[in-house]
Amino acid sequence: MRLVTFRAHPAAAARLGALAEGYVIDLALLGRAGGVDLPDDMLAFIDLGPVAVAQASKLMEAYRGNWPVGSALPQENVKLLAPIPRPRKNIFGIGLNYVEHVAESSRTLDTSADLPKQPVIFSKPPTTVIGPGDAIEHNAKITQQLDWEVELAVIMGRRASRVAEADALSYVFGYSVMLDMSARDCRRAGQWIYSKGQDTYAPFGPCIVTADEIPDPQVLDLWLTVNGEKKQGSNTRYMLFKVPFLISDISAGITLEPGDIIATGTPEGVGAGRKPQEWLWPGDVVVACVEGIGTLRHPVVAV
Amino acid sequence: MRLVTFRAHPAAAARLGALAEGYVIDLALLGRAGGVDLPDDMLAFIDLGPVAVAQASKLMEAYRGNWPVGSALPQENVKLLAPIPRPRKNIFGIGLNYVEHVAESSRTLDTSADLPKQPVIFSKPPTTVIGPGDAIEHNAKITQQLDWEVELAVIMGRRASRVAEADALSYVFGYSVMLDMSARDCRRAGQWIYSKGQDTYAPFGPCIVTADEIPDPQVLDLWLTVNGEKKQGSNTRYMLFKVPFLISDISAGITLEPGDIIATGTPEGVGAGRKPQEWLWPGDVVVACVEGIGTLRHPVVAV
Repeated sequence: MRLVTFRAHPAAAARLGALAEGYVIDLALLGRAGGVDLPDDMLAFIDLGPVAVAQASKLMEAYRGNWPVGSALPQENVKLLAPIPRPRKNIFGIGLNYVEHVAESSRTLDTSADLPKQPVIFSKPPTTVIGPGDAIEHNAKITQQLDWEVELAVIMGRRASRVAEADALSYVFGYSVMLDMSARDCRRAGQWIYSKGQDTYAPFGPCIVTADEIPDPQVLDLWLTVNGEKKQGSNTRYMLFKVPFLISDISAGITLEPGDIIATGTPEGVGAGRKPQEWLWPGDVVVACVEGIGTLRHPVVAV
Repeated sequence: MRLVTFRAHPAAAARLGALAEGYVIDLALLGRAGGVDLPDDMLAFIDLGPVAVAQASKLMEAYRGNWPVGSALPQENVKLLAPIPRPRKNIFGIGLNYVEHVAESSRTLDTSADLPKQPVIFSKPPTTVIGPGDAIEHNAKITQQLDWEVELAVIMGRRASRVAEADALSYVFGYSVMLDMSARDCRRAGQWIYSKGQDTYAPFGPCIVTADEIPDPQVLDLWLTVNGEKKQGSNTRYMLFKVPFLISDISAGITLEPGDIIATGTPEGVGAGRKPQEWLWPGDVVVACVEGIGTLRHPVVAV
């Protein structure tokens, strides 16, 4: 399933949906038609675990092409929000996780040219999250170096503490796209939360693709353009630390919980690594895509 | 008020209380007796803002010494939890915020001897939080350098975005004590979340003292002992960046929300800074206190 959080109209509450045939299917309403009690909220759905996913998938198949009236809204009529509009904790970010990005970063930022021996973890507060199409804020008072980073996002499905690498993928609920926006001049004594944690710095979506549809997260093309010009283009196979290792490594010390998000790092081609360096400014438009998941398109605006 | 979250007995739900005369006063039950609708949850209470604080204070005064039956439990009978058992996002931590601690860190860790020009911010996930008396986990598989840090914790009361330093204290709900436990050998390419973000690494409590009772947060003694031996002893006046500046600075880029916690940094005397260095091991007991707020006592246990 391709799961979304949406508003049926601007004044409507956020609800859980699934994309199919150009429609957004309201899963709670579909469940009601099919006699299955499904929640109207993404985090509540994730909490229910694989049984709910299987039941919802079954209903989606059973009603395909014959949707109950009211449960299927034309996708053009709704506003998609971030799939998880309000994560329950900071997003886990992984730095320096593509080989070429380690090299480009060391040339112009303050990071080492050596490949990290362990995942470099940082965090982005829930207040960074914006949905598809929402504006990325450019606050010229505190940054002149706003940069882009397209990333595969992993959404955890089950509580994970000290999980073995071989079992790790079974803890994943699904995958999405995240932009890890970074104000390069806001790093503080090596800590990145202020450079990566500002309001609107985590465009997220457009959907979560459930893990059953992405059996191998390490074969996905991902790319990014600024004002139509390609800046990043790579494949998740070039990750230094792959998704199972990341889950195993983080969960060795930090319990991961349902709905937790891991942004798995960005490939080469960021603005900081270019000669001359390039930064985002109000009026720019960033488009980012991970193959098989979807595309995000975000304007940059002054605040 | 000295606000707590407590369980009346081991199987009871967590509830909001206030300490007075050796009792824990159940604020929702006191409110019912007094005809005021008060919540039974700390975050819900914080969300209600100054009106709820004023009403609850008034009731506490009105019923002092004459508590309604059932609303006042002997403090020895209840279990105190962390005042906010589950923060809504990662705790904001401030590194290198006492002058002498900057010096001792630079001698033995990988930080600079220069005073930071801006606050050094990191984060601790909600899963780090434990309540008074709970065990700090020592996981020998991933750390041999578990260290202590006593800190004044600031609890935000109102949504704060781009707040001026002069107004910042009016956004504070109250103050508490936090231990910023740190596995010094788990730093990752300069990022601290893995060293400071492991499960049980944020002992928190025993209460939140509302801001009206601490008009100046920069005059408080704070100290810490390990197995009865004094290791840290200082005063919040020696903070490099004071509380109003921290709130103003963070909120310039990151919106702070009600219930957000800022751990304001630790003074000199951590284990990493000693000659020879000292680390915590299973069986050790850490006691930490901030003047006028309260004392935390935590055993270290192997996992």
